[in-house]
Amino acid sequence: MAKKSRARSLEPLMRPRSVAVVGASRKKISIGREILRNLIVGGFTGPVFPVNTAADSVHSMKAYRSVEGIPDPVDLAVIVVPKQHVLKVVRSCGRKKVKALVVITAGFRESGEEGAERERALAASVKRYGMRMVGPNCMGIINTEPGVQLNASFANARPVPGKIGFLSQSGALGEAILSTASELGLGLAQFVSLGNKTDVSGNDLLEYWENDPDIELILMYLESFGTPRRFTPLARRITRTKPIIVVKSGRTAAGARAAVSHTGALTGTEVATDTILRQCGVIRVDTMQELFTLAMAFAHQPMPVGNRVAVVTNAGGPGILATDALIGAGVRLASFRAPTRRKLRKALPPEASGENPVDMIASADGDRYAAVLGPVLADGGVDAALVIFVTPVYIDALKVAQAIVAAAAGTRKTILTCFMGKTRSSEAVALLKENSIPVYSFPEDACRALAAMIQHQEYLARPVGKVTRFRVKKGSAAILRRARRQKRELLTFNESRALIDAYGLPLVPTHEVTDAGTALTAARDLGYPVVLKASSDRFPHKTEVGAVRLDLRTGDEVASAFEAMAPRLRRRDPGTRFHVQSMVRGGVEVILGAVTDPAYGPILMFGLGGTEVEVLRDVAYALCPVTDKEAQRLIGAIRGAALLTGFRGSEPVDLGALARWICRLSQLLIEHPEIQEVDLNPIIVNPPGRLSGVVDARIRVELPHD
Amino acid sequence: MAKKSRARSLEPLMRPRSVAVVGASRKKISIGREILRNLIVGGFTGPVFPVNTAADSVHSMKAYRSVEGIPDPVDLAVIVVPKQHVLKVVRSCGRKKVKALVVITAGFRESGEEGAERERALAASVKRYGMRMVGPNCMGIINTEPGVQLNASFANARPVPGKIGFLSQSGALGEAILSTASELGLGLAQFVSLGNKTDVSGNDLLEYWENDPDIELILMYLESFGTPRRFTPLARRITRTKPIIVVKSGRTAAGARAAVSHTGALTGTEVATDTILRQCGVIRVDTMQELFTLAMAFAHQPMPVGNRVAVVTNAGGPGILATDALIGAGVRLASFRAPTRRKLRKALPPEASGENPVDMIASADGDRYAAVLGPVLADGGVDAALVIFVTPVYIDALKVAQAIVAAAAGTRKTILTCFMGKTRSSEAVALLKENSIPVYSFPEDACRALAAMIQHQEYLARPVGKVTRFRVKKGSAAILRRARRQKRELLTFNESRALIDAYGLPLVPTHEVTDAGTALTAARDLGYPVVLKASSDRFPHKTEVGAVRLDLRTGDEVASAFEAMAPRLRRRDPGTRFHVQSMVRGGVEVILGAVTDPAYGPILMFGLGGTEVEVLRDVAYALCPVTDKEAQRLIGAIRGAALLTGFRGSEPVDLGALARWICRLSQLLIEHPEIQEVDLNPIIVNPPGRLSGVVDARIRVELPHD
Repeated sequence: MAKKSRARSLEPLMRPRSVAVVGASRKKISIGREILRNLIVGGFTGPVFPVNTAADSVHSMKAYRSVEGIPDPVDLAVIVVPKQHVLKVVRSCGRKKVKALVVITAGFRESGEEGAERERALAASVKRYGMRMVGPNCMGIINTEPGVQLNASFANARPVPGKIGFLSQSGALGEAILSTASELGLGLAQFVSLGNKTDVSGNDLLEYWENDPDIELILMYLESFGTPRRFTPLARRITRTKPIIVVKSGRTAAGARAAVSHTGALTGTEVATDTILRQCGVIRVDTMQELFTLAMAFAHQPMPVGNRVAVVTNAGGPGILATDALIGAGVRLASFRAPTRRKLRKALPPEASGENPVDMIASADGDRYAAVLGPVLADGGVDAALVIFVTPVYIDALKVAQAIVAAAAGTRKTILTCFMGKTRSSEAVALLKENSIPVYSFPEDACRALAAMIQHQEYLARPVGKVTRFRVKKGSAAILRRARRQKRELLTFNESRALIDAYGLPLVPTHEVTDAGTALTAARDLGYPVVLKASSDRFPHKTEVGAVRLDLRTGDEVASAFEAMAPRLRRRDPGTRFHVQSMVRGGVEVILGAVTDPAYGPILMFGLGGTEVEVLRDVAYALCPVTDKEAQRLIGAIRGAALLTGFRGSEPVDLGALARWICRLSQLLIEHPEIQEVDLNPIIVNPPGRLSGVVDARIRVELPHD
Repeated sequence: MAKKSRARSLEPLMRPRSVAVVGASRKKISIGREILRNLIVGGFTGPVFPVNTAADSVHSMKAYRSVEGIPDPVDLAVIVVPKQHVLKVVRSCGRKKVKALVVITAGFRESGEEGAERERALAASVKRYGMRMVGPNCMGIINTEPGVQLNASFANARPVPGKIGFLSQSGALGEAILSTASELGLGLAQFVSLGNKTDVSGNDLLEYWENDPDIELILMYLESFGTPRRFTPLARRITRTKPIIVVKSGRTAAGARAAVSHTGALTGTEVATDTILRQCGVIRVDTMQELFTLAMAFAHQPMPVGNRVAVVTNAGGPGILATDALIGAGVRLASFRAPTRRKLRKALPPEASGENPVDMIASADGDRYAAVLGPVLADGGVDAALVIFVTPVYIDALKVAQAIVAAAAGTRKTILTCFMGKTRSSEAVALLKENSIPVYSFPEDACRALAAMIQHQEYLARPVGKVTRFRVKKGSAAILRRARRQKRELLTFNESRALIDAYGLPLVPTHEVTDAGTALTAARDLGYPVVLKASSDRFPHKTEVGAVRLDLRTGDEVASAFEAMAPRLRRRDPGTRFHVQSMVRGGVEVILGAVTDPAYGPILMFGLGGTEVEVLRDVAYALCPVTDKEAQRLIGAIRGAALLTGFRGSEPVDLGALARWICRLSQLLIEHPEIQEVDLNPIIVNPPGRLSGVVDARIRVELPHD
């Protein structure tokens, strides 16, 4: 309920019945005048009221001295007054019962402490009067809906109407976004420059757009996530029906994290962001250019139902470029069925290739394009087609475009085109665009877009899986409570062992020992060979200080190893503890870890173990809670996955157990948010029936602040 | 001498004094007519002679019935007649003493066996008359030099004169290349569509361009290398003074290679191509778009002398995008010196940032750009600047462009710009282009170009190093000769051992044994622990068949290991040989391998060893001969390099020895081209003074063809 009404409260913002422009200026070049002009030239369907403290008319329109002086009701006020007057104007709007504000004026949080103070006062005032506000420090909002036609921005570019919701955290980029979209013929439904996000946030808009039938595709330029925990479920839901493509900048801004464990060092804000976006089905691109490349295809073409692509070209070179790009992006080239092949052979001269990619050679005209595209698009083994045309002088490009448009009209399959050497074919390109068929200048861009569509479709088709709730032993809360009460960040080996044991993560058989005698007994108990190791939070990395002796095969070896190790390490830390552990033979070393991100919650990491994990970083991440399917995906996502699934005749390891351990660790993290980091490193996994288990565990908790 | 004259023989092709167009047609839309028109409209500085068997005049010019009927000398003939007449025309050209040909006509090798036959006859005829020929199956050639002005192509686009040599193996892409270059204002000196490369090859043109002062930058679209062994030294030399940027397509066309060894499976034609291009200083890009992005910068700006980049912007968002892109590409942001900081503080309003990236905020006008760019470009810690401008309504973009042009005039540093939201600033963009300052639409493209320039500069600055000629023992030729005579592709363990030993690559101490008794003696001799292993070419992967037993510590262990292994493996292969080897403790496993590529010669591979090398593919490659510097680069190039240089307190391994072994293996391969594959896997490297060496070696030779 609260959510619905919150989203609905954006109606007067995006679909106002009347607009006041406060700070509408008489000066020829000014933002206030530009906004007024955009509202009027844009054809806003309701009345616009200029407000100017000094003039009776602005831009040939009657001007009012204050918002309160306007005799009619005002839904939306756009505020462009100098920063020191903003608050006064906002209060006046509140008294006038204005419902929504767009504050263009800069000089708030972004400009130091004084500005931040001003912003807090602004936020409080907006809240007091129950208004909604975009900005401050933004370039405005646009809604191209025919019944609204609101251009409350100072943008130069005129947006073309369409189905896209575009949200930009940077006003400066907004201008570039609008002008590029116009050039490309990308139609916008709504555009919002968010500015400082003091009231209306990206999440608010996403929620509003979720239920807005005008919006079918969402594009975003973001510098930060406001509330990731709100974004995650929202994005997961929306991307099921409306693709979201995002440029998230600030990759390198995130500083290095201090961390005690391997996992911590491997995880960072960027990894968290990537993980979350991927798991929510959000398509992240690196550059603005790529955003537009993808948007052209997503906005104008149906999604492909599969990944089998046909390439149809009149020139070999671009066909090769396309094939490279598609295969490089993991897309499959379709194999044509026999009847298709027969038809192509009939339609093509003998020098041409009737296999995919179809090279129709330079003499291909509109008729040949039609004769080839018909059977190719009708082939049940083809999900999408990339049609390439390089303008030879003697071929009528317009007829080729007409043939493509006609072929597209008869199918629901995805069609992208690439017209090269366009000097001669601007009419053809225009015709394709009019018919919602994207035209690229180079085949690689078309392939990038097609690959993104196919990957998104695969995401949508992938089963989400379910979160299993495992039964766990009691006592874990008590362990964590005691450590926190005693202000110990790092759990002891025995505490860590008890905690993972409670969640069903098996530790390799291990006994604590105190001297050579108990070490001997423990070794006999466990059976040879064994490992002797020492732990202390003074030396987190055991191998560095010689705190591990592997593969001890006799009592003598155990005793002498203890005598050699214990006095030396006890001098470093008298509290050093010693353990004798069964030596696990064979198997593959993996690492399971987790870091709890302050914004995103616990993020789980899986990778190959041992020294390599740190150097080669062969790891994959998942946001908790991890579903059964996600755990399987995680295991398959690392480069070294082949080591687990049976390599060079070795038996596959117990993948079922490994997946369950991942889910169990996820549950531990979800149920104990006070856990900051977990590092199960290594875990040795063997084929089913042989000994597998956690060899070493380190767990760090957050200490209570006081 | 031969080389010089070969290159000089392209003069009549690229700088003819007269041109005949054979097949000049009266038809309105035909390639022949288009070529004639391009020659005339292009303003060719010599006479053009149309040749048409049926008409007396073409395009208002007197036409001749045959080339031989032309009364004046003819340097270049462009041939556009139907394929069945080409040979006849070529012979006629030969008799006329025409010096060079451009054959546009298609229907040769690319269209089947009959065409290939026709192409062989064509090649023979061209050779007989001592002519040079571009094509067949091409779109022609262009030279914009004022004294020549030759446009002997059927391209629509009109090239802008400039300093670029552009070579395209695809005629179809040629059209796209020329039209994109014109749009971007990229000036071309010469353009050649190579077609089937029957006579004039890419290497011929490179050689010609090497000494042509008109060409300062070379761009290529390639589908294949003609003669890599000729390309390699040529490209290495040219890139020292003229950058070469290439799109090499056909990445995925290369099929999988059959190979007996690990190295073989890891190497492929693509790897070879990448390795060679990198070592020759050729800049390889993935897409045509990227080629142009880079070309804009390389063609118009001086190379940066270092890698410290300043970013100057009037908007935060694009500045963040730029910073991300630069750091992501491995480029450093410059730190300003104190006087620069002081000047910036004075020039900027308090809300702006005077640190790098410099955010001058939206109110920055031409004057502020001037005031900031001056000190930034004068700063000794700055090598290049990226200037970003997003058009706010109230700022005069032209004045900003003027400020940038003025600042650029006073410096030799690299300046790239990004003007966003260009609707308003086309005048400004035009001014920058006129002044050779590249303008990009998005910051990421500018950053990509800047990063490529910096990387190329680093390549040029890197010492090449030298190839050491090590003294080697005699006998290696005899070993290889015997194996080849006996038709044994795979050398035995003992042969491999002798071969690497001759080249100073140390095998870990190893004795051949035949029974438990000799195994025991060998083990005592070497000292415990030892390894027992068996070798046979019936089981190349030892671990799969249990042919290795590690860490045997006593005589009993050795004897029982032998008894368990030998009978079983002798049943598989009675010729199985057994060895006892010292067990090397600690250290890092690496692999050194090589494959001799039929086109490129031996390519050496270095990587982390063991199972991981195959699964994680952490390897780097170098073309032989490997210099000392290249060997060091190779060791540092793998992701896991940190494992070698001392990780978590471990001592660094003997990097000097490792680098020497790489060079010694390189020498073995160069001196014995009959070696097809080498696989030294693993090699265990320890810190200096401790035992390091090759643990296992497999060498495959090429058998003589008979």
